[in-house]
Amino acid sequence: MESFQNVSLTLSIDAMGGDFGPVVTIPASLDCLRKNPALKLILVGDEAVLAPMLTQVMIEFKDRLRIQHASQCVAMDESPSKALKNKKDSSMRVAINLVRDGEADACVSAGNTGALMATARFVLKMIPGIDRPAIISTLPSIYGHTHALDLGGNVDSSAEHLLQFAIMGSEVVKAVDGIENPSVGLLNIGQEDVKGNEQVKAAAKLLENSHLNYIGYVEGNYLNAGSHRVDLIVADGFVGNVALKSIEGAAKMIGASLKEAFNKNIFTRLAGLIAYPVLKSFKNRIDPRLYNGASFLGLRGLVIKSHGGADELAFATAIHLAEVEVQKNVIQNIGEQVENILKQRHGTWQITQE
Amino acid sequence: MESFQNVSLTLSIDAMGGDFGPVVTIPASLDCLRKNPALKLILVGDEAVLAPMLTQVMIEFKDRLRIQHASQCVAMDESPSKALKNKKDSSMRVAINLVRDGEADACVSAGNTGALMATARFVLKMIPGIDRPAIISTLPSIYGHTHALDLGGNVDSSAEHLLQFAIMGSEVVKAVDGIENPSVGLLNIGQEDVKGNEQVKAAAKLLENSHLNYIGYVEGNYLNAGSHRVDLIVADGFVGNVALKSIEGAAKMIGASLKEAFNKNIFTRLAGLIAYPVLKSFKNRIDPRLYNGASFLGLRGLVIKSHGGADELAFATAIHLAEVEVQKNVIQNIGEQVENILKQRHGTWQITQE
Repeated sequence: MESFQNVSLTLSIDAMGGDFGPVVTIPASLDCLRKNPALKLILVGDEAVLAPMLTQVMIEFKDRLRIQHASQCVAMDESPSKALKNKKDSSMRVAINLVRDGEADACVSAGNTGALMATARFVLKMIPGIDRPAIISTLPSIYGHTHALDLGGNVDSSAEHLLQFAIMGSEVVKAVDGIENPSVGLLNIGQEDVKGNEQVKAAAKLLENSHLNYIGYVEGNYLNAGSHRVDLIVADGFVGNVALKSIEGAAKMIGASLKEAFNKNIFTRLAGLIAYPVLKSFKNRIDPRLYNGASFLGLRGLVIKSHGGADELAFATAIHLAEVEVQKNVIQNIGEQVENILKQRHGTWQITQE
Repeated sequence: MESFQNVSLTLSIDAMGGDFGPVVTIPASLDCLRKNPALKLILVGDEAVLAPMLTQVMIEFKDRLRIQHASQCVAMDESPSKALKNKKDSSMRVAINLVRDGEADACVSAGNTGALMATARFVLKMIPGIDRPAIISTLPSIYGHTHALDLGGNVDSSAEHLLQFAIMGSEVVKAVDGIENPSVGLLNIGQEDVKGNEQVKAAAKLLENSHLNYIGYVEGNYLNAGSHRVDLIVADGFVGNVALKSIEGAAKMIGASLKEAFNKNIFTRLAGLIAYPVLKSFKNRIDPRLYNGASFLGLRGLVIKSHGGADELAFATAIHLAEVEVQKNVIQNIGEQVENILKQRHGTWQITQE
């Protein structure tokens, strides 16, 4: 990812969100402030908790850091509808309000995904033509990384929705990777034209006739290790989420087996000690913390979701993703692209009707 | 898996199928004959190719091994419809014919999946009440292994289809693992009742009202590493296939990263040499060859599909799976279960109508 340090930008941070709250969000925030002099942060949460943790740095970052008090917290297992109704002064809600009011360019939260999505949708509203936010994130691949969406925002997506995902996701890839014309693959169960369900076959036709760099169907293995590089993989949120969780399960099982093999006896433990630096560099390569941060796309403002269990490094990665997407105007670009597509479709429709 | 060596059984082997053909299928077949004295095999393929490879063992296995000549082969990339129309004397077709005619109890092939499925469906026909064969296989998990279906036979499955998969899959788990009442999970994107697409929510209701040991929704990570053991995971063939391929991709990427880390320089290679026995035992634990063999369920006969790239060990694993499923009468049990369910539904329907 590139950094742009010339233009100032402001992010609102849900400082109370996630499994660990301020213990993680504050050190990560300070780390990002140190790395990017153009960055300003508004830490949202209980002032009585946050202020004492920041006394020593308030001078260092005097014009670049402030606390916005919020009296409530959304619990990690709270129902989205209850959070929306009863937690109008939650750190999550206030952080999103700051984006709506133009005080922040984007919001980063490690809070409850369902509540964050419901609140973001309610407060920021959707771009006309988009129904629900789609979740995009990056996955490590043998070619570096792959972007994939939708990872769980939408189920029973229509072909039209899949096209919207491709349009929105392409803007994220352009911003994050600096690729002019990112390649787009459609997740399917085979690469032949006859394969797939009805929704995917119809989406393929829309993608073929779009301005996107559509390269055809790809199978699930392309998320991490296909036979060629694909910049963006598009799927229904149900399928995308199952794929993501399946990959997480596979990685967990493989990691557990590796650990077990090295823990078997005194000799294997000794071998593990010798191989430790190698195993560590291997682990760093696929460290999920370096891929933390999912963007909600289709809203009239940028919201980045961090993994709830994020540590300092992981949460800082999510903040950095927000910096890049703000600097590259991802939300504005998505809005323009979607508007263009809607105009074109409306045009075509009128011609057909005449 | 258990072995039953008391009752004799006969399998037909598509000896020409797979990426390597007889070079793999023959040694694997001989290995299985040696291990199970009750096993009889019919090797189907070009007699001119097979006979010279078997001259030395024909005496050893005189009553337990024979060649059935077939003049054609189905190519690995041949279209299923063309194979069905033009390859009526293929090794695959003749091997399946032997099951239809009662000469073999099951057929094992490493050939072209689409052609095998189309041919099996055409020759053997479906059990009444089932529309298309579902593909079931086992995946390694932190609890040992998990069975999952459908891995690609059916797309756009209805809730009723998902129930059928659960019924058929449970019979396979009972046979292969000797579990009386296997736990069944439905693949979804969350464990809460409100999550999921329409098809999955409807299937959950059918499963709750069935005689099966249905335990609720599970997420993709349960295929390899959930927070508790699940014996059987049920999904639409589109979703199941994407999950399977995603896991394959993740394993490939992780394996490649591990190899890369140990190949970086002379010191890491030395560490790799010392850790070699450990890395090998780790690799054996998740060796995909030990999980080779997918059963096509819903046909009036048993067909086991081996991975096309199977080596001798992997192909022998698929043959052994056929032995177990034949000895445990999986096909007959599935037929009875499906018939019972249809009767019950028909009964309920009549009551509702009165």
